[in-house]
Amino acid sequence: MRIVLGLEYDGSFFCGWQSQPSGCSIQDALEAALSKIAHNSIQVITAGRTDAGVHATYQVVHSDTLVQRPLSAWVRGVNALLPSSMAVLWVSKLSDSFHARYSAKERCYLYLLLNHPIRAALYHGKVGWFHLPLNIEQMREAAQFLLGEHDFSAFRASECQAKSPVRNVTKLEIIRQGDIIAFEIRANGFLQHMVRNIIGSLVYVGKGKYPPQWIGELLKGCDRAYAAPTFSAAGLYLGGISYDPEWRLPGFIEPPLTAVLPRMFRASNNLLPNKTDTSGE
Amino acid sequence: MRIVLGLEYDGSFFCGWQSQPSGCSIQDALEAALSKIAHNSIQVITAGRTDAGVHATYQVVHSDTLVQRPLSAWVRGVNALLPSSMAVLWVSKLSDSFHARYSAKERCYLYLLLNHPIRAALYHGKVGWFHLPLNIEQMREAAQFLLGEHDFSAFRASECQAKSPVRNVTKLEIIRQGDIIAFEIRANGFLQHMVRNIIGSLVYVGKGKYPPQWIGELLKGCDRAYAAPTFSAAGLYLGGISYDPEWRLPGFIEPPLTAVLPRMFRASNNLLPNKTDTSGE
Repeated sequence: MRIVLGLEYDGSFFCGWQSQPSGCSIQDALEAALSKIAHNSIQVITAGRTDAGVHATYQVVHSDTLVQRPLSAWVRGVNALLPSSMAVLWVSKLSDSFHARYSAKERCYLYLLLNHPIRAALYHGKVGWFHLPLNIEQMREAAQFLLGEHDFSAFRASECQAKSPVRNVTKLEIIRQGDIIAFEIRANGFLQHMVRNIIGSLVYVGKGKYPPQWIGELLKGCDRAYAAPTFSAAGLYLGGISYDPEWRLPGFIEPPLTAVLPRMFRASNNLLPNKTDTSGE
Repeated sequence: MRIVLGLEYDGSFFCGWQSQPSGCSIQDALEAALSKIAHNSIQVITAGRTDAGVHATYQVVHSDTLVQRPLSAWVRGVNALLPSSMAVLWVSKLSDSFHARYSAKERCYLYLLLNHPIRAALYHGKVGWFHLPLNIEQMREAAQFLLGEHDFSAFRASECQAKSPVRNVTKLEIIRQGDIIAFEIRANGFLQHMVRNIIGSLVYVGKGKYPPQWIGELLKGCDRAYAAPTFSAAGLYLGGISYDPEWRLPGFIEPPLTAVLPRMFRASNNLLPNKTDTSGE
């Protein structure tokens, strides 16, 4: 029997998705809880391995087990055993032809960037941070160069193990809500650090270091050495995985971008009484 | 010289506001950072002491020091020394007639309640949780009984040290956004655990245990023994302190209620494919 689980987690409490000898990963915590419910060792296959510090609002995994349990045991039972920073949202039983990774048609990531002179406190670990003003229009213009099927070597981590650097980016939307800039990026798949490298380079454009066209040149150059440094993992969320509707899996919320912490508490510059008050006398 | 600071913090990383011998409190962390900048021991007076686990999006403190520092040192310098779960948002220099606590005219608290069959994971520690459906209309009707000046002994912790149990509640608004129920409550002041005790009792009304009128009877009875248990600290936020405009302090965002994590990622029941999938077979 193949069970499919939808997960939510706060990545700041784990050393990433991938199982580690120390047991500090999301996979380790999940497999331990599932194995306890099954009274049997259970391994899971994920739709996408997230790095340390990266969160998920909609992660999908599957697992094979001969054990019969009511679906509630795979949700409520497992949740009772998982750390509080992780939860199973739903479960489905599907045929063996479903594969969390290979059946996925599209992945959606979100990036939340606090664009404010003062770093996050309440949302520490949940947002990236850039302290200088960013020009959203320039960033949006730059983002257009990334849409479509391209060789994304310029935004690929050196240790990336993907066979091909070609990916098809179907959406890259940028919205500002108060002091939060939210990025939604969808593609058939992502290379390692691809989203964070793209965010870093878009921030270079937003702060005026380069014009929007620079992103197009970077992409064509296929050389990671020219792109901006990898941006912080803190603001990155795996926001959804799309599968063929025939699988009848719960859909992630559309559009997730507008569903994220909009207008955080600090979402107004009127909190800073005036320039001189924070920049000296 | 009296300096006034606006603060934001994630209460889940501290043992509450009040200084403790172990140094685990928000006050301890703040005074340590301020003292380092001043090269001198600095004590602070707060507008309101928050309990362990309670957050603040707009807390106000004042402190007296003979040390002259540029305002930027009191913001950026202190932030560099504070734990990442806490930040100074702004600073002002005011006359000695300003007092963070006694000059406060109104306090605003927010409570975020995740009303969903599955507990929080990504927002663990940031929201309270109730798993059964709640009737918002009934809760709103109940909330009306609490408006105005009353003896709030029924919602007062036994260890509360306030001289009088009389408080004037000027606003109690309840909004649902997806699976989050947000409460905004304003008063000239609050008794210990008053907001959390009110939330607990409103949840009793929302789940149908009592009619809205029960809140009015509770209030009149002035007996804590009949109210619901104190609700979790996790969803509680000190959202603002109002002072006379003459002080020209940065205002908190109005209305803070609609500014809070609306429509969390999970803000849709369509994530649960159908009842049977999560409640058994």
